[in-house]
Amino acid sequence: MQTPKKIAVVGSGLVGSLLAIYLRKAGHEVEVFDRRPDVRKVKFSGRSINLAMSNRGWKSLRAVGIEEEIKKLALPLDKRALHVADKPLYFQKYGKEEEAIYSISRGVLNRKMIDLAEESGAEFRFEEKVWDINLSEAKLYTGESEKGEWKEYEFDLIFGTDGAFSRVRHKMQRQSRFNYSQHFIDVGYKELRIAANADGSHKLDKGSFHIWPRGEFMLIAMPNLDGSFTCTLFMPFEGEISFESIKTETQATAFFEEHFPDINLEIENLKRDFFKNPTSSMVTIKCFPWSYWEKVTLVGDSAHAVVPFYGQGMNAGFEDILVLYQKMEKYGDDWEQIFKEYQNDRKPNADAIAELSYRNFIEMSSKTADPDFLLRKKIEKNFADKHPDAWVPLYSRVTFSDKSYAEALAIGDYQRKIMDKVMQLPAIEERWDSKEVERTILDLLAKEVKTS
Amino acid sequence: MQTPKKIAVVGSGLVGSLLAIYLRKAGHEVEVFDRRPDVRKVKFSGRSINLAMSNRGWKSLRAVGIEEEIKKLALPLDKRALHVADKPLYFQKYGKEEEAIYSISRGVLNRKMIDLAEESGAEFRFEEKVWDINLSEAKLYTGESEKGEWKEYEFDLIFGTDGAFSRVRHKMQRQSRFNYSQHFIDVGYKELRIAANADGSHKLDKGSFHIWPRGEFMLIAMPNLDGSFTCTLFMPFEGEISFESIKTETQATAFFEEHFPDINLEIENLKRDFFKNPTSSMVTIKCFPWSYWEKVTLVGDSAHAVVPFYGQGMNAGFEDILVLYQKMEKYGDDWEQIFKEYQNDRKPNADAIAELSYRNFIEMSSKTADPDFLLRKKIEKNFADKHPDAWVPLYSRVTFSDKSYAEALAIGDYQRKIMDKVMQLPAIEERWDSKEVERTILDLLAKEVKTS
Repeated sequence: MQTPKKIAVVGSGLVGSLLAIYLRKAGHEVEVFDRRPDVRKVKFSGRSINLAMSNRGWKSLRAVGIEEEIKKLALPLDKRALHVADKPLYFQKYGKEEEAIYSISRGVLNRKMIDLAEESGAEFRFEEKVWDINLSEAKLYTGESEKGEWKEYEFDLIFGTDGAFSRVRHKMQRQSRFNYSQHFIDVGYKELRIAANADGSHKLDKGSFHIWPRGEFMLIAMPNLDGSFTCTLFMPFEGEISFESIKTETQATAFFEEHFPDINLEIENLKRDFFKNPTSSMVTIKCFPWSYWEKVTLVGDSAHAVVPFYGQGMNAGFEDILVLYQKMEKYGDDWEQIFKEYQNDRKPNADAIAELSYRNFIEMSSKTADPDFLLRKKIEKNFADKHPDAWVPLYSRVTFSDKSYAEALAIGDYQRKIMDKVMQLPAIEERWDSKEVERTILDLLAKEVKTS
Repeated sequence: MQTPKKIAVVGSGLVGSLLAIYLRKAGHEVEVFDRRPDVRKVKFSGRSINLAMSNRGWKSLRAVGIEEEIKKLALPLDKRALHVADKPLYFQKYGKEEEAIYSISRGVLNRKMIDLAEESGAEFRFEEKVWDINLSEAKLYTGESEKGEWKEYEFDLIFGTDGAFSRVRHKMQRQSRFNYSQHFIDVGYKELRIAANADGSHKLDKGSFHIWPRGEFMLIAMPNLDGSFTCTLFMPFEGEISFESIKTETQATAFFEEHFPDINLEIENLKRDFFKNPTSSMVTIKCFPWSYWEKVTLVGDSAHAVVPFYGQGMNAGFEDILVLYQKMEKYGDDWEQIFKEYQNDRKPNADAIAELSYRNFIEMSSKTADPDFLLRKKIEKNFADKHPDAWVPLYSRVTFSDKSYAEALAIGDYQRKIMDKVMQLPAIEERWDSKEVERTILDLLAKEVKTS
């Protein structure tokens, strides 16, 4: 049991609202600040990638008893549907039977989470912008404008859940010996939408994560409960095929017709969204330390924003909260120790998921259209089905297990080395499911275990 | 010839004052802002590493006709003096005859540079702090405090020469797609001083850069014109032997006595400075882009701060200015093109000197005490003397040439691979200056050229 504290959570997004629920559960007084209006009272902004909730996310929701309620808002996807140019539609199972990721709208989820946090007793202060933070005294300053009058709040603890461009972290960054990096990729994204059929059914298979891999660019689509799909077009900002290069209606029509013929009935809607919705950028953010003594700590994207290509951003943030809560149970009122162990546990895992997400950006856009890559995945899947204890594929370890991201990255690296060798075997295309290939993998695994 | 512009330079340090001289030479109106008082009117702060001016720095000064004047303030050092524990003093020549780096006090140099910039017609506004910048309109806002009244200035162009913690860059960092990193090393530094003899002479050889390499930590000393030495103690912030671990006079005495017996007459002074002077941190800063359209650009540390272990921070900043000036001569009034080519030319070189500086931190503190490393340097030197066209040692390429840092890094890497092989030759300790070794290096070089 902890002594009840007066706690500020800065940011009412997914991580902020779940953290509020956890802190209320632990008996603390919780105020959540957000500079934006209440997301329950505004239209969604058209710049969101649908979320893929997977094991880590569910586990964190389960621990505060809200898993089932949230699951009602989500659709399970147990496979990828690959729309490779000039090839028939190809389905690729994500994992074993029953293993699925869950498509959920960010806006729908956020609204529900805020409801649940309020029910648990957290107080929300929307449209109240935090301009400055006194880290050593856990004070917040809010106001209409940076140069105007500010209101001072004093807390025992402050949690920064204010996302990739965190104001709380920004204040910590001005300290000496604070390591920090922000790295933008040259690819942007834009939200598009495929509407439901007239009868409310889905136009594409609703149990799949749809991908149109096109090398330099890629379209994805995830189903919503109302029969629509939220699509995201990922494409370079500049260059031959890029957001910059598509300026007119005619150019947009030509682009969608050429590259996405199997959804060409949707072109008018896609085009409308293309010119209506903003083009957003993607960033990897790393920093350390995450905490300021026993007063302030960062959770979720504010500590470790990743590019969205592994579908783990929210899941990693939710897992942060679970780990933080375990430290709270372990160390009681010793918040310095809680924050220290939390950041030391999570930092290597945050770095690992950043790396994995960045690699998946390369993999999803170019390699999912590559026959060699598909064969490689088939061999892995085949072997993993026969030897589930010896081989958990990297994607499954990240998405369906709760083993650490850092371990997943390390094991993924040696699995890749083994698969590089397997792919060199003569006539691998014909004998990919032969006994010899299985034997070779087992031998290589045994050798790897010995040397590692 | 360029159309005269109204230009603000933010920061009156070494790079800011040299840039002001260059811009005046090109006919522009120049105002230099600095939040600090005029360095000519204050005592030095006791947190400076003496500077080592080398070829790139001199070349940039020469181009505006002030090389000779500055040289009067500097002392040439043509070798390292290695004070290895329990070994006789060992001298290591830096390069060929006549090649030397020049020791110069940061404060002395900065005062002189501001004098020269004022003489050239630049106007200095000291104790005027820039709080905000309007990048697209090249406006500056200064004032007593962040929340107080601000004064607005409008310029045609703004140059950010305000160092590692640049306010100008800070403003650019809030833009989307601005890549940025700051990485602190776990080692701090403290300035100490060895006074002159009573007759004004130096207590150690004044033609050497003195190093006491001690593995985890290191002391260096560089001579001043007045007979004193500016010393810098580099040591971990925390740990067994660290700034944190030396808390009392007794501990400090024991530390200096044990590790620096050959300067033990200085212990009282060293100790006094140890407790009087601050412990400072060291950071590598990288960012991109450096420019905002044709309005704003960063020069020197604000664009690329490096750790001080290659003695190239100032030299790299001065070289930035020379390159920028060459682009001004090439493109006239097309400032967008000037800034674009300047940043594209300089960025890979800034990254290369950051990497080289970081590596030298490892090399100077631990490897300069290692017999294998000293032998390796001897072999390289010997070979370079015989084949000056085939082998320019990395240190010489960085320090005494004006070939790009990026090229130096790349060539240094393949030279290291060759030397790794040479050091594997049997009985290399005995036959290091033999014909066979020379032949081996020539063969390896020929092979390297073929494959690269």
